[in-house]
Amino acid sequence: MEASRPLDTLNNARDKRVLVELKNNKQYIGKLKAFDIHINIVLADAEERIDSEVKRKLGSVFIRGDTITVISPE
Amino acid sequence: MEASRPLDTLNNARDKRVLVELKNNKQYIGKLKAFDIHINIVLADAEERIDSEVKRKLGSVFIRGDTITVISPE
Amino acid sequence: MEASRPLDTLNNARDKRVLVELKNNKQYIGKLKAFDIHINIVLADAEERIDSEVKRKLGSVFIRGDTITVISPE
Amino acid sequence: MEASRPLDTLNNARDKRVLVELKNNKQYIGKLKAFDIHINIVLADAEERIDSEVKRKLGSVFIRGDTITVISPE
Amino acid sequence: MEASRPLDTLNNARDKRVLVELKNNKQYIGKLKAFDIHINIVLADAEERIDSEVKRKLGSVFIRGDTITVISPE
Amino acid sequence: MEASRPLDTLNNARDKRVLVELKNNKQYIGKLKAFDIHINIVLADAEERIDSEVKRKLGSVFIRGDTITVISPE
Amino acid sequence: MEASRPLDTLNNARDKRVLVELKNNKQYIGKLKAFDIHINIVLADAEERIDSEVKRKLGSVFIRGDTITVISPE
Repeated sequence: MEASRPLDTLNNARDKRVLVELKNNKQYIGKLKAFDIHINIVLADAEERIDSEVKRKLGSVFIRGDTITVISPE
Repeated sequence: MEASRPLDTLNNARDKRVLVELKNNKQYIGKLKAFDIHINIVLADAEERIDSEVKRKLGSVFIRGDTITVISPE
Repeated sequence: MEASRPLDTLNNARDKRVLVELKNNKQYIGKLKAFDIHINIVLADAEERIDSEVKRKLGSVFIRGDTITVISPE
Repeated sequence: MEASRPLDTLNNARDKRVLVELKNNKQYIGKLKAFDIHINIVLADAEERIDSEVKRKLGSVFIRGDTITVISPE
Repeated sequence: MEASRPLDTLNNARDKRVLVELKNNKQYIGKLKAFDIHINIVLADAEERIDSEVKRKLGSVFIRGDTITVISPE
Repeated sequence: MEASRPLDTLNNARDKRVLVELKNNKQYIGKLKAFDIHINIVLADAEERIDSEVKRKLGSVFIRGDTITVISPE
Repeated sequence: MEASRPLDTLNNARDKRVLVELKNNKQYIGKLKAFDIHINIVLADAEERIDSEVKRKLGSVFIRGDTITVISPE
């Protein structure tokens, strides 16, 4: 996930598992399928975690960009 | 709900039941009828849930995009 | 209130009674008279409710879009 | 205060007394002298109320739009 | 401070003492020297007040517009 | 720090020591080296203060504009 | 990290270790690999700290700009 522009970095992470953290402290882990310039994200095979504990299996999930704080490879 | 751009993903979910979560922790479940680039959403046959408990039947509901955190198939 | 774009949906609700919920948990019920792309809303014959209890009769009210979470037919 | 676009509605309220409510729960009552597309507002002969109690006489006051929730005729 | 557009109103207040209130409840009183369309403000001979009590003499101060709620003549 | 537009004012403060206050109540004091229209700021020889107490020496620091409330000469 | 525009400053910090602080008080320390005009940031060899304590090794991390308060060389 290293590149000269932040979005290149996300592009390199396509189809890999990433951890997305939200302002409300929820975490979503899944395979990065899509993103746009607003950092709206789609994950596949996703699960929701709160305090590192799995709360729900979600299949796919659309995450609105402005609610995201950080994205990192799992 | 897999595609290369996040909005394609929402497009594939049209007329299917989705779960929309808000920053205020309310959840709306219903059939996805419409959305736009701001992620404003219209659901049909919707119900409002708080802590997974059904609070209200709403028929249709317009949800303002900037209040949404995640959208997932039910 | 069903259509392919969210604003068409609001357009179909013109002159009908709707419930508008705000981020501060206040609710305004009234006849939908006007809206714009920012989802600024004008209701006529409106009343303000807090926890489902009528607090005030308002006649007409202008509601700033960015304070709105959901809009639904009453 | 009825019209087909929300700003027409504000225009019809010019020189009439209106109640402006803020996200911080303060209320300003005064004669509507000016507004713009950001819903920045100027009131004349204004007073500030908190919990419906008059706190201050202000003469005129400029209110920044993004702090406003609702505007209604007094 | 009366005019047909809100910014005209600020323009008429140039070089006069105004009270600027912030979302964090701090108040700045000083001579209005400059403003722009974002309502960024510069005051001269300014002082900071919290709960109407003078906390600091500031000379001049730049106030970022999006932190402001209201501006009124002192 | 007096001029007809707020950014002129910041320009006049270049290379002088300023106090930058943030929405989270932290303060940064340092020499103003750079700013832009978003009010992103770079200070040199900076220190962080909380409740007027020096917490850290920082060398230089980049401060994101939307987190700033006020900027004043020290 | 001194230059006439804030983004030049970030540019000079490329490939150096920086400390990024977020609105939620988390800190990320790592090598600055990428940034854009929204101040979206990518760090390599990053770790997350809360109250100056290392919580997690992250490898690389994408940080959304609007959640950032300050960036400084470690």
